[in-house]
Amino acid sequence: MAQLIADKRDVDFVLHEQFSIGDFSEYEKFSDYNKKTIDMIMKEAVNLAVKEILPLQKISDEGCVFDAGKVSVPKEYHKVYKNYCEGGWLAMYDDPEWGGQGMPKTVSLAANEYFYGACNSFMLFHMLSHGAAKLIENYGTEDQKNKCLKNMYSGKWSGTMLLTEPEAGSDVGALTTSAVKNPDGTYSIKGQKIFISGGEQDMVENIIHPTLARIEGAPEGTRGISLFLVPKFRINDDGSLGEFNNVECTGIEHKMGLHGNCTCSLDLGGKGECIGTLIGEENKGMAAMFQMMNEARQMVGLQGFANATASYIYAMNYARERRQTKHMTAAPGSGPAFIIEHPDVKRQLLFMKSHVEGMRSLIYYGGLLYDKMAVSDNADEKAALSGILEVLTPIIKGYITDRAFEVCSYGVQVYGGYGFIEEYPVAQLLRDTRIFQIYEGTNGIQSIDLLGRKLGMKKGKPFMDFLNEIQKTLSEAMKVNEVKEIAADFSAYFEKYAKTAKILGEKAGSDDVLKAFSFSHPFLETTGDLSMAWMLLWRASVAAPKVGQKKKDDNFYKGQINTARYFIKTILPVSSGKLDAIAQTDGSIADMEDAMFGSK
Amino acid sequence: MAQLIADKRDVDFVLHEQFSIGDFSEYEKFSDYNKKTIDMIMKEAVNLAVKEILPLQKISDEGCVFDAGKVSVPKEYHKVYKNYCEGGWLAMYDDPEWGGQGMPKTVSLAANEYFYGACNSFMLFHMLSHGAAKLIENYGTEDQKNKCLKNMYSGKWSGTMLLTEPEAGSDVGALTTSAVKNPDGTYSIKGQKIFISGGEQDMVENIIHPTLARIEGAPEGTRGISLFLVPKFRINDDGSLGEFNNVECTGIEHKMGLHGNCTCSLDLGGKGECIGTLIGEENKGMAAMFQMMNEARQMVGLQGFANATASYIYAMNYARERRQTKHMTAAPGSGPAFIIEHPDVKRQLLFMKSHVEGMRSLIYYGGLLYDKMAVSDNADEKAALSGILEVLTPIIKGYITDRAFEVCSYGVQVYGGYGFIEEYPVAQLLRDTRIFQIYEGTNGIQSIDLLGRKLGMKKGKPFMDFLNEIQKTLSEAMKVNEVKEIAADFSAYFEKYAKTAKILGEKAGSDDVLKAFSFSHPFLETTGDLSMAWMLLWRASVAAPKVGQKKKDDNFYKGQINTARYFIKTILPVSSGKLDAIAQTDGSIADMEDAMFGSK
Repeated sequence: MAQLIADKRDVDFVLHEQFSIGDFSEYEKFSDYNKKTIDMIMKEAVNLAVKEILPLQKISDEGCVFDAGKVSVPKEYHKVYKNYCEGGWLAMYDDPEWGGQGMPKTVSLAANEYFYGACNSFMLFHMLSHGAAKLIENYGTEDQKNKCLKNMYSGKWSGTMLLTEPEAGSDVGALTTSAVKNPDGTYSIKGQKIFISGGEQDMVENIIHPTLARIEGAPEGTRGISLFLVPKFRINDDGSLGEFNNVECTGIEHKMGLHGNCTCSLDLGGKGECIGTLIGEENKGMAAMFQMMNEARQMVGLQGFANATASYIYAMNYARERRQTKHMTAAPGSGPAFIIEHPDVKRQLLFMKSHVEGMRSLIYYGGLLYDKMAVSDNADEKAALSGILEVLTPIIKGYITDRAFEVCSYGVQVYGGYGFIEEYPVAQLLRDTRIFQIYEGTNGIQSIDLLGRKLGMKKGKPFMDFLNEIQKTLSEAMKVNEVKEIAADFSAYFEKYAKTAKILGEKAGSDDVLKAFSFSHPFLETTGDLSMAWMLLWRASVAAPKVGQKKKDDNFYKGQINTARYFIKTILPVSSGKLDAIAQTDGSIADMEDAMFGSK
Repeated sequence: MAQLIADKRDVDFVLHEQFSIGDFSEYEKFSDYNKKTIDMIMKEAVNLAVKEILPLQKISDEGCVFDAGKVSVPKEYHKVYKNYCEGGWLAMYDDPEWGGQGMPKTVSLAANEYFYGACNSFMLFHMLSHGAAKLIENYGTEDQKNKCLKNMYSGKWSGTMLLTEPEAGSDVGALTTSAVKNPDGTYSIKGQKIFISGGEQDMVENIIHPTLARIEGAPEGTRGISLFLVPKFRINDDGSLGEFNNVECTGIEHKMGLHGNCTCSLDLGGKGECIGTLIGEENKGMAAMFQMMNEARQMVGLQGFANATASYIYAMNYARERRQTKHMTAAPGSGPAFIIEHPDVKRQLLFMKSHVEGMRSLIYYGGLLYDKMAVSDNADEKAALSGILEVLTPIIKGYITDRAFEVCSYGVQVYGGYGFIEEYPVAQLLRDTRIFQIYEGTNGIQSIDLLGRKLGMKKGKPFMDFLNEIQKTLSEAMKVNEVKEIAADFSAYFEKYAKTAKILGEKAGSDDVLKAFSFSHPFLETTGDLSMAWMLLWRASVAAPKVGQKKKDDNFYKGQINTARYFIKTILPVSSGKLDAIAQTDGSIADMEDAMFGSK
């Protein structure tokens, strides 16, 4: 049977050949997770993904049902939800103290690639539950942790995040949900929240809503925002469920995709008292929420990537079995060729492959940094690793979801007319993927984060560390004969990128700030291209010496070299042109006044 | 009230200031169409589009209904269909002999921009009817013309085009529908056709299907294909309708968009005799169909453009009324700014504006060439104009629909979370637009047409004529002070483009043919970028001298200069990098073997 969702050979390559993730078993913390165990886990994950979660995908497109405050998910979700949770997949890399499996995060990401690629809308429930639990684990009181964590990591309860309001989307600081302190130390919450994924659903006993609200008299803007734990049903002291906490679902959105996850409007405290308890300190809600959001942003990158890899595998399989038109160089009278042989179809598939594989490495690399932090006992090293991950976060969220949408669009294109028909899987993948560029901070906001915060933070050290890691790969690649030439090309791009980043960073801190930020998104794009080329060159350097060793792997390794070559020789020149535009930082965007855009 | 669909000021600018279309009234043929008349026509068109067709858009998304061989369009279509046809809008630029209005095609395109931007799926019925009628007008017998044309141009009957079969999509030559000659000179047609837009519907009395089929014993491939006129109901000698001709609709597709136009599967002659009459000569069907397809391709470009302009206008209006987040350079304590003021939102809108306006000029320019042909009495001049239009066709179809999808995706992005919600108009525009990159020849095929046929045809004369037209605009721009600098930038790009086209063209005719064609799509993209910049520079040159003349127009003209500047300073450098990659023509795509793409 053809591969589905992802190419297992490539997943294994990144886990074991590029990142040697089994070596972490040398550390006490990960001693249970040697290569053999990891392979077993991955086998189970692929099984669950393909046999149970993937069949939900088509069903998920029919959507959830809202009726009088209740939301029903597709009925087929329930059994798979139970199996998924019972298998411990919700808390793969979390602390065993709270019911987690304690495996390396990198492995969890590889498993999640399959789960999300199988059915993103089903997985989004878990993603938010996990994020909410992690938030409580990091910032909650002992009481909050004891009451919630095991229930959440086991999937008995779910979690969400309540930020957005009709007038407070990108501008979280504009929120108006209020919190009034009660004599017993709890708070009465009142307000409306929108766009709440999984805000109400029927798979769980209780839903925990980490909620941003403003305590009476607190300052305006983000400095006056506090974070509260607001359960759907109140939690008694013995952990049993109490009465309904007046978190009322008032409707769900009709969207262009991701129908299998309900996007809810919630009314808090409108019809009766809604009680919340403070998470962390008063007015410090944004910091905690940001920690949750950073993880969520990395996961949104994975969401986009997972759909992209699924779309790539479908398109590749289709192109291998669909025949149309004689090949350009075939002898007269030849029959139609498989479309994978036509040059422009090859181009499309190679665009998809190079991005999907670069994304895979970059996303797993984010996990690797996390795992390295987990085993490090050196504070400086931990800070450095964390810094690189912070630099990578807007790239993983912003760049990857932008390119994932493009990859999914190519998936439709390779199918031709059939791609537009919902009978085939690629149209839904495209529709579902469109939201990832928007939620958890639009990609415009990611680009502002990269240029305005990540580039210059801590005097630029994390950003320099990021570039130094790339330099290491480059130096290694220069020693490998088969990739020397493309390494040299990459090196030239790398130098130009570093110079351009410096120029733009300086402008961002000068009177040219508006010009500079009108190029924040191209800057994000070039930083992403740099990251893709980095990962692909790394892969090629690992692959090249292995060509000729085992016949069955030869095409795979040759494919690695050729894919890096394609990206460096074909995509990087375009990106290099973008660097020219950034360095020039023309004022046409900044100069554009409202009235110049068109008639009112 | 805010503008809808398009910015009327910009439409007028292109018609009257860039192309002076009213001047055609000096010719006998267009003597009825001076500027004043054109303005009246446009006013009527905008009225019809906004008041009658636009309200169909949301409704159209609910789709057509198939039941036992019958297809019902949304019931609201019927009245608008009648009004549209009675107004003569279906045959705006056609010969009055057959009921046409005889106006310049350029004006018809401007009107169509509004109609298609209002509801593309509704208009697709008309687009195909018109194409089919034109085909019969150009290639049909006197009898076919007399029986069909007035009924078709008046909208009493509709038309389609029957090419695609399950195994013959891009590969038309693989079709298996058969035609057997009858003693009376008619043919009995038998076969299955799929993806037939408007193949069955309930707004008309009869449907005329120009059908590709192979006459018994004809050669294989495209050389053995003939074209037939196959009506849904047979036509009696007196023009009245006879019995059902056994063109049976067996189902309609479920698609990701354009739901308001039914995509039909048709069975011809499966349940009884299906009679067709030959159009043109035996085995020469492809040539006639290509003529129809060329017009259709230009119209598909317009379809994409029309959705892009609608999405742009929605996004611009939204960005002018949505407030989020304090502006970067605002004083502390300032309230949230309109998002149109944020640099990255400006960038997104300017990307949209520059492409939409470049597309508008390029599409109208296609009409202008057609109108110039219509009034020319010089055969060489006519051939030259026709050649340029042939070069432009794959750009208008391929490049414009690719970028239109991108523009529509930006439309969603500017709306943020609301963009993903079907309550707002931008999601549907994005979904509807995805098909334009596929039908009437995928954009991959457009790129092969450009590189493989249009670049070198007639010893390269049409392509040189195309470049010479650009050179003229450039020379004029060099004389305008305010645009001199960007003209110089454009000139450098233009030189590089011309060199690169020569290199690639030579490789396409050498042993490097597969390498060359693995860059056909980037070549289409750069040719499109060149065309956009050409049109935008032309616009800026016209606008610049007018700044300061009338206060109310100042922002419009300044916007023109700034938009050209943006495209030339920000998009062209990226395109220039793409030219580097094309010139290098790396072999990584061509070298990619099936097995290197991934595991089976």
